[in-house]
Amino acid sequence: MARKASLSGFPEWLPEERLVENHVLDTLRRTFELHGFSNIETRAVEPVGQLLRKGEIDKEVYGISRLQSEESATAEDPNALALHFDLTVPFARYVVENAGHLSFPFRRYQIQKVWRGERPQDGRFREFTQADIDVVGDGVLPFRYDVELALVIAEALAALPVGDFRVRVNNRKLAEGFYLGLGLTDTAGVLRNIDKLEKIGADKVSELLQSELGATPEQAAAALALAQIRAEDASFVEQVRELGVDHPLLEEGLAELSEVVSTAAERAPGRIIADLSIARGLDYYTGTVYETVLVGREKLGSICSGGRYESLASKGNRSFPGVGLSIGVTRLVSRMLAEGHAVASRKVPTAVYVTLTNDDAWAAAQDVASQLRARGISAEVAATAEKFGKQIKFADRRGIPFVWFTNADGSHEVKDIRSGEQVAADPHAWVPAAADTSVQVGALTEAD
Amino acid sequence: MARKASLSGFPEWLPEERLVENHVLDTLRRTFELHGFSNIETRAVEPVGQLLRKGEIDKEVYGISRLQSEESATAEDPNALALHFDLTVPFARYVVENAGHLSFPFRRYQIQKVWRGERPQDGRFREFTQADIDVVGDGVLPFRYDVELALVIAEALAALPVGDFRVRVNNRKLAEGFYLGLGLTDTAGVLRNIDKLEKIGADKVSELLQSELGATPEQAAAALALAQIRAEDASFVEQVRELGVDHPLLEEGLAELSEVVSTAAERAPGRIIADLSIARGLDYYTGTVYETVLVGREKLGSICSGGRYESLASKGNRSFPGVGLSIGVTRLVSRMLAEGHAVASRKVPTAVYVTLTNDDAWAAAQDVASQLRARGISAEVAATAEKFGKQIKFADRRGIPFVWFTNADGSHEVKDIRSGEQVAADPHAWVPAAADTSVQVGALTEAD
Repeated sequence: MARKASLSGFPEWLPEERLVENHVLDTLRRTFELHGFSNIETRAVEPVGQLLRKGEIDKEVYGISRLQSEESATAEDPNALALHFDLTVPFARYVVENAGHLSFPFRRYQIQKVWRGERPQDGRFREFTQADIDVVGDGVLPFRYDVELALVIAEALAALPVGDFRVRVNNRKLAEGFYLGLGLTDTAGVLRNIDKLEKIGADKVSELLQSELGATPEQAAAALALAQIRAEDASFVEQVRELGVDHPLLEEGLAELSEVVSTAAERAPGRIIADLSIARGLDYYTGTVYETVLVGREKLGSICSGGRYESLASKGNRSFPGVGLSIGVTRLVSRMLAEGHAVASRKVPTAVYVTLTNDDAWAAAQDVASQLRARGISAEVAATAEKFGKQIKFADRRGIPFVWFTNADGSHEVKDIRSGEQVAADPHAWVPAAADTSVQVGALTEAD
Repeated sequence: MARKASLSGFPEWLPEERLVENHVLDTLRRTFELHGFSNIETRAVEPVGQLLRKGEIDKEVYGISRLQSEESATAEDPNALALHFDLTVPFARYVVENAGHLSFPFRRYQIQKVWRGERPQDGRFREFTQADIDVVGDGVLPFRYDVELALVIAEALAALPVGDFRVRVNNRKLAEGFYLGLGLTDTAGVLRNIDKLEKIGADKVSELLQSELGATPEQAAAALALAQIRAEDASFVEQVRELGVDHPLLEEGLAELSEVVSTAAERAPGRIIADLSIARGLDYYTGTVYETVLVGREKLGSICSGGRYESLASKGNRSFPGVGLSIGVTRLVSRMLAEGHAVASRKVPTAVYVTLTNDDAWAAAQDVASQLRARGISAEVAATAEKFGKQIKFADRRGIPFVWFTNADGSHEVKDIRSGEQVAADPHAWVPAAADTSVQVGALTEAD
């Protein structure tokens, strides 16, 4: 994986790397479906007006227009088309358009490419795959889904060969209630500055809180003290109370975050923690917020983020609250590949290469291959009857573990290229070891 | 499926429709992998210069450019970026770029969205999914792959609930050799006109051959007679010979097409036929050409096309010949959905809805769900302890077949909502009928 993308920011994988990515996608899909999430896909393009509703990210959006057309897409034309930059905005539109056909709470997952015209850098791409899960209600959505989604994501990530991770959870009500209780009314402003904590450090954030928002040194210190709190269970509640701030919204937030973290401590111990520094830049979250880091590789940034939004979308006076998370699949896979953390057991799907004794044996060899495939064993047939040594060498170079021979008397033999062992075999019955039937993808162990 | 896309030409499916599409994609993937094809994905964008190399389809290409950028993509700027309109051009670039990392013959499949800015109409979309398989050689590629790919595609399509189909095969050498033998030297011109046969009829094509290409009435009649020939086996060879034309290239084409059709007659009887009217518009095919129609729905057009190209790509004096086919997945699925030809056995992945006796029972209910999921049974848990009648009604509306109850004494029962039957069940052991474990997608039978 020392190859560079031929177009900066648009990564492409080799076939054996794609096996790792497909393993990740299959694992996510399986986990989400076991939890009752339905799959949808939305079109790649949205009207510019729809895409830019939520904020000031127009610089990052790719407009599209037919090469022969006089007009090109601009930020000023709300009907111009542009590539989606996430899966949340298109999902919100989909829910509103199809509300009459969906049952709420609607559980969906969506795995698609998204595009952002930003400057490519480590872990950031112009084209990348996101895997999103959300539950959306019609009018109301019980808080329990905030707990459930954290557990589903922890289960999905634990099934991947990514090593240890932490889902860090916070709650906007908790933070905002705390700031209000402190007497800081521009809660969005405080959050925005707290979000810079990891980048610029506590001293700088304190300065900004005082200079920009008029906080006293004591208020700034309290806001920063809140952001220092981390816990693997509900013990964070006591730590917050020790800061001596009181507000009804704070109480609500404490209760909600406690419910997530206490349940998680029982059902997914050590995976999901309260981290009161988590702010999430986007301003539409209204309660729970999630971020996820790989332990020891925190610098990579969040590989899975999300939260609760009181109104994902609305239709007339009907509102659709939701809670969801989005996994940055490309960021995750590119890191797995770059660090050699995951590897496919072979380079191709093929398990058996059926050799030819002579050029007329092709039909009989295809019969053997069909019999193997009927038992789920991937097989391909040589196209020409080269010398056996050459046919074996070809299979070996492709990474195919077994070669099949048909003898002049009609008997069959199969050779494991890796061990050199060759045994008699019946095309109607022979099966390889389970680990050799299909490609396995797993974490490299220390021994490798 | 009476819903209209909210953006013309950009179809989106409901969750239950997506189940049908995913079944199609899974079936194709499984078939291709059983035959040893490796999966790759290429980026969605290519430089305009790369995309427009092969012909005059620039009108259909969507350029992309950042909304905030001064410049928009134009056909004149070869470095501007545009969305790919097929998977062949990106694959050719990928092969050249990664030739040092691939083993040839390289067998790959690729399933991705493509975009074309053309006017949407029945069966034509602006965004759609293609599923391609190709085998590409380094320098040479044995003809046998032309036979193999027809068989792989026939096997893949036969595994789908699409009804009967025909892969129609022809050979460019056969047609061109025949025209040359007739004395018509502008073979591309003849092919272009023969390609219009289905649209404008034999009389009009004959007129065009005479007025545009200076053919005599006899030459035009012979070219049309060739295009009338169809056969399920190699008997077409005799029919061609009866037309009394002689040319070495014709002989080569007859031998190649015979090999495809004779082998197919044995291995996939009735599925793959010689049809000497097939021309394929694109001019880079050099031998075998394929088209596929659904029997009784020929008007839909070809759902799977391809052919042999002597040079998919080249790198210095190294040339990469290939043979491949492309399935129009969106066209196929939209037709299956519109005609109700395929249907999912339920609307959601969930098999079991675990009810709550009271709000404190959520953790225990999640334990039951986890035990079911460990055996591959999709389960979700009610978020609130509403009356049982309401919980059952919710499961029923979502299309979930089973509801699970935990009694006060800790025993469990499961109810099949469809039959009303309710039985005692052990969360560690209970399994539904195989047909209810995961969603089944199949053709509607007459009885439905």
